[in-house]
Amino acid sequence: MKARLSELPVGVFDSGVGGLTVLAALRDLLPAEDFLYLGDTARVPYGTKSAESVSRYAVQAAGALVRRGIKMLVVACNTASAVSIDCLQECYQPLPVIGVVRPGAKAACCASASGNIAVIATESTVNGGAYKCAIENLRPDANVISAPCQLFVSLAEEGWGSGDIAEAVARRYLEPLFQRFGEDGPDSLVLGCTHFPVLQQALESVAGPNVRLVDSAKTTAQEVERILCGAGLCREKERQGRVNFMATDCAGRFAKVGSSFLGEAISAEDVEIIDL
Amino acid sequence: MKARLSELPVGVFDSGVGGLTVLAALRDLLPAEDFLYLGDTARVPYGTKSAESVSRYAVQAAGALVRRGIKMLVVACNTASAVSIDCLQECYQPLPVIGVVRPGAKAACCASASGNIAVIATESTVNGGAYKCAIENLRPDANVISAPCQLFVSLAEEGWGSGDIAEAVARRYLEPLFQRFGEDGPDSLVLGCTHFPVLQQALESVAGPNVRLVDSAKTTAQEVERILCGAGLCREKERQGRVNFMATDCAGRFAKVGSSFLGEAISAEDVEIIDL
Repeated sequence: MKARLSELPVGVFDSGVGGLTVLAALRDLLPAEDFLYLGDTARVPYGTKSAESVSRYAVQAAGALVRRGIKMLVVACNTASAVSIDCLQECYQPLPVIGVVRPGAKAACCASASGNIAVIATESTVNGGAYKCAIENLRPDANVISAPCQLFVSLAEEGWGSGDIAEAVARRYLEPLFQRFGEDGPDSLVLGCTHFPVLQQALESVAGPNVRLVDSAKTTAQEVERILCGAGLCREKERQGRVNFMATDCAGRFAKVGSSFLGEAISAEDVEIIDL
Repeated sequence: MKARLSELPVGVFDSGVGGLTVLAALRDLLPAEDFLYLGDTARVPYGTKSAESVSRYAVQAAGALVRRGIKMLVVACNTASAVSIDCLQECYQPLPVIGVVRPGAKAACCASASGNIAVIATESTVNGGAYKCAIENLRPDANVISAPCQLFVSLAEEGWGSGDIAEAVARRYLEPLFQRFGEDGPDSLVLGCTHFPVLQQALESVAGPNVRLVDSAKTTAQEVERILCGAGLCREKERQGRVNFMATDCAGRFAKVGSSFLGEAISAEDVEIIDL
């Protein structure tokens, strides 16, 4: 049974294309694994919707992946992780389910020397306080201040992740956030939305050399590896894993915008449209 | 019967808060009328979704308004108007149904002397070609060139409709669009998304004094007045009309962002949340 279970793909779910930055990290670390990626492009973005709506959508999306057969579920969307991870873990046990918030919080605690940690995310993620809570859980002395940066999502999707406009927007969001830490400022900046790594260059240039950027993609991939190995569910190393893509709307747009997020070309014909 | 029918509100439907710029024009011209506004905030934005999804959502939203009782339906969303107006008119006849695309096209034809007309809109509206088609229908000699300007939607929602960032984004979208007209350039710029009037100042400053900005809000309101009067459905002039708001998610966000679009305060308690 275990041998056959290990042959199933890892399910990865996001509200749209943002989670492809997490998929890229997963593919880097676990090249032998197959992945089944679902982007809920008919209802993207989740970041400005209520916790109740996001939870309902997340359960539907997870259900679609589970019905296809997966050995593990990665919620590669910060907003969905923030509001629905406990509910998903309970719903689909014994399937291992992990989100990106706790791995991101862990990475932030490791990266920060001073404990002054700035978090940027979508409105819903900030309002729910999931990062603050997860970081303070691991490190009670941390001083965590969060700010919503909704425009970064559109900049990333428009392919304007670097350049003058991206830097001007980053300055407008980060300067007031950093000032809230007082004289010392933060020493780490958590990218609490899977779209934000696309803006890394602009964020680094505004944040300056004393602030470390932390994103949850790599830490999430490490956590997935740890869980799969622990459960004896890893694939044999020598094979080359495949990815199948599903979306709930607009295969063409998913392929076009998604290619830059994943860092490799996606063809619209390879994106299966499903209804949730 | 007509006396009672005339007492019903005018239904106004949009994917979110953008249509409130149309509602503001309707209230200006028809202060005695009651309005019932529905923003589909659970599924906003429509502008990056497929025509099939947008049509399905529009029929559901229109149905919710019709069930409450309305004497006329205004589709105050360019994307929904572009893809579903014929279907809605057929579905709900004899209810008068109008969208914002044809009134906007009419306004553009009146405003333009040279016939060189630039249209900016969401991706879906541009891809569907509805403005180009509606303008060329009225004025076959017109030279219509359109460009999607997705980031304007987020700028308007973030309350960043004017200032340096708005102007930089406007420059990045408009300069290549205007160059496509050759030496003369366009003499009119159609704001083919109800979010875009929020950016009027930035757009004017980039477009320069020789380009007239055209938005469909005022022309749509005039069209509504014409239809209501023609059908004997106008309210007596001396009364002060009311507005009721409905949304499909996030009353607080609807009230906060919507107030700046409508130009008057909306309280979250006055926004009824409904499921479609």
